[in-house]
Amino acid sequence: MAEDFVVTPWEVHGVIDYAKLIERFGTQPIQPELIERVRKIAGDVHPMLSRGIFYSHRDFNWILDEYEKGNRFVLYTGRGPSSGIHLGHMLPWILTRWLQAKFQVKLYFQITDDEKFLFKDFESLNDAKRIAYDNILDIIATGFDPKLTRIFLDTEYIHHMYPVAVRVAKHVTFSTTRAVFGFEHSNNIGEIFYTSMQAVPCFLESIEQGKNVPCIIPCGIDQDPHFRITRDVAPLLGFYKPALLHCKLLPSLQGFGAKMSSSQPETVIFAADSEKETRRKIGNALTGGRATLEEQRRLGANPDICVVYANYQYIFEPDEDHLKVVHDTCKSGARLCGECKAELADKVVAFLAKHHERREKARDHVEEFMLRD
Amino acid sequence: MAEDFVVTPWEVHGVIDYAKLIERFGTQPIQPELIERVRKIAGDVHPMLSRGIFYSHRDFNWILDEYEKGNRFVLYTGRGPSSGIHLGHMLPWILTRWLQAKFQVKLYFQITDDEKFLFKDFESLNDAKRIAYDNILDIIATGFDPKLTRIFLDTEYIHHMYPVAVRVAKHVTFSTTRAVFGFEHSNNIGEIFYTSMQAVPCFLESIEQGKNVPCIIPCGIDQDPHFRITRDVAPLLGFYKPALLHCKLLPSLQGFGAKMSSSQPETVIFAADSEKETRRKIGNALTGGRATLEEQRRLGANPDICVVYANYQYIFEPDEDHLKVVHDTCKSGARLCGECKAELADKVVAFLAKHHERREKARDHVEEFMLRD
Repeated sequence: MAEDFVVTPWEVHGVIDYAKLIERFGTQPIQPELIERVRKIAGDVHPMLSRGIFYSHRDFNWILDEYEKGNRFVLYTGRGPSSGIHLGHMLPWILTRWLQAKFQVKLYFQITDDEKFLFKDFESLNDAKRIAYDNILDIIATGFDPKLTRIFLDTEYIHHMYPVAVRVAKHVTFSTTRAVFGFEHSNNIGEIFYTSMQAVPCFLESIEQGKNVPCIIPCGIDQDPHFRITRDVAPLLGFYKPALLHCKLLPSLQGFGAKMSSSQPETVIFAADSEKETRRKIGNALTGGRATLEEQRRLGANPDICVVYANYQYIFEPDEDHLKVVHDTCKSGARLCGECKAELADKVVAFLAKHHERREKARDHVEEFMLRD
Repeated sequence: MAEDFVVTPWEVHGVIDYAKLIERFGTQPIQPELIERVRKIAGDVHPMLSRGIFYSHRDFNWILDEYEKGNRFVLYTGRGPSSGIHLGHMLPWILTRWLQAKFQVKLYFQITDDEKFLFKDFESLNDAKRIAYDNILDIIATGFDPKLTRIFLDTEYIHHMYPVAVRVAKHVTFSTTRAVFGFEHSNNIGEIFYTSMQAVPCFLESIEQGKNVPCIIPCGIDQDPHFRITRDVAPLLGFYKPALLHCKLLPSLQGFGAKMSSSQPETVIFAADSEKETRRKIGNALTGGRATLEEQRRLGANPDICVVYANYQYIFEPDEDHLKVVHDTCKSGARLCGECKAELADKVVAFLAKHHERREKARDHVEEFMLRD
């Protein structure tokens, strides 16, 4: 049977049915009660949670139980340094930053230069490392708290990671990686080993404190397969299973089913894009509009299949009331795609202008964020 | 077809046909011309070479070619810290020490604590590490030159090793490890990755010097499969292929076909054995003797199937003339097993007494040998 869509840490294609993905992966949907629980504890709830951009989880309730008992959790997220950062990459970082600020907790930020070397056609590991340090500027520019953030590259922090990675690896067979990732005999042995490395940061704080510390991982749902393995292994090593918060993937500017790819610049807005590039790309984006202006005025358009609307909803319109205005005026035909794109472009350009400024400042602060030793 | 004998880095059983192993592994026999070449260059030749204990190689001629052109090689050997050291482990170290002294070259000595944790039933990685440091005392006691020797544990030197290991891993598929080591889907992903780590020391000196340096690995022939893979990968990374010198495996005291096992103490003499234990074990060893004294006096015995004679030949009788006396008097029936064992036991006891003394002294010198950052 042909798959209608595929989601793995290294491959995403087709129109993703997110409800079906919850079933496939065996995760839990984020229900209104859980969102209300967050609001009660944090005094507030981030739009990405209330709007279902972060829509799935594992054990988030348990994380909050522990927090209410006084057991602070740690956050863990990561970045595979394969290219420049685009908005899709920043999606989980934004919620992670919010969680860090609201709960005042430590964040481990893993940069998987080994992974990107092993899985991508980098000529050398140094190419992955160079991109890693470029990406770190975008991470810092996202606004994490330097006192609570620990960024590290796998190859540089390896003396702390490898002893934990081999402990994980001992409990994971090739069969498991085959079942979970679809690995074949032609996969290289670094790819096969790699999931052990992605497991490690879940346990770093427990190791540092010498006692079990809960860990929660905000990430794209495509990363869940790694942590399914980690969750199976964790108790065997005497650690808590990591909890997860899964977000949907920001759709391609070319439509929900289109491939979002750093190698096809028209499908994504990069953090480094100029105002001109940003406006052009948004101008070329696929919308839910009608074939003609007249038709659109008469019948209205469809925001629910529109990637421009998705960008309002996922990131750029925090105000619920105005988001409703965008939605409703789109549906009624009062709003046309051109003006709607221009309005989004203004927001994205303003967001990126601030990001560029923070990114330049970040150059002088990298070491404050890095986990060395 | 059932295998008559099996030799892999993790499993040895059956009576090994060493000539057949050369064919299976695709290595070269060490011919008399090569031995004479060593004698010419080194001024001398070690009995392990002239007697065919080290009997197979890859590219040893090339190593000597380069040496004569003024390109010094480096030595690399290793130890998997699974138990206390026995005489079988020390066999390749003894030739390595001789090569180091004669050619005045650097030796990288890898301690594969990760391997022994991944492949053995150690409860924790620390158990492998504890045994590693115990084994290091025996390594130092063997008499390596501290100025020319660099000992390291994989998990401790990992910051230098891992970036090289992933470069190797990228060029090795699961298929290859399956073909070379017989791995199955049930192997753990650390075991599958591990050969990348054993490849790394071949390249450490080239990386340090920033130019290609020839490397030769004296080791038991059971380790060759790792380096067959390494030799395939090396040119892809721009390094020389490592050369090898393979020794036969010291037979079990219970006979050539018997399993030599640290868990069956009567099969091996440990470096830590007392005089009493040593004498008892040699006393119980299987010989090529006859059923009765009378028969032996009359028909003679067979040194070629005798593990006591093998111990004379492999390690304990450097003098060719006396070795011939032992051989001939055994064959003629003039020498009986009891006296022959007693003579060997005297030699082994003297050897171990000196070793124990050096081992105690080694405790204060570990750091002189360790490669730390």
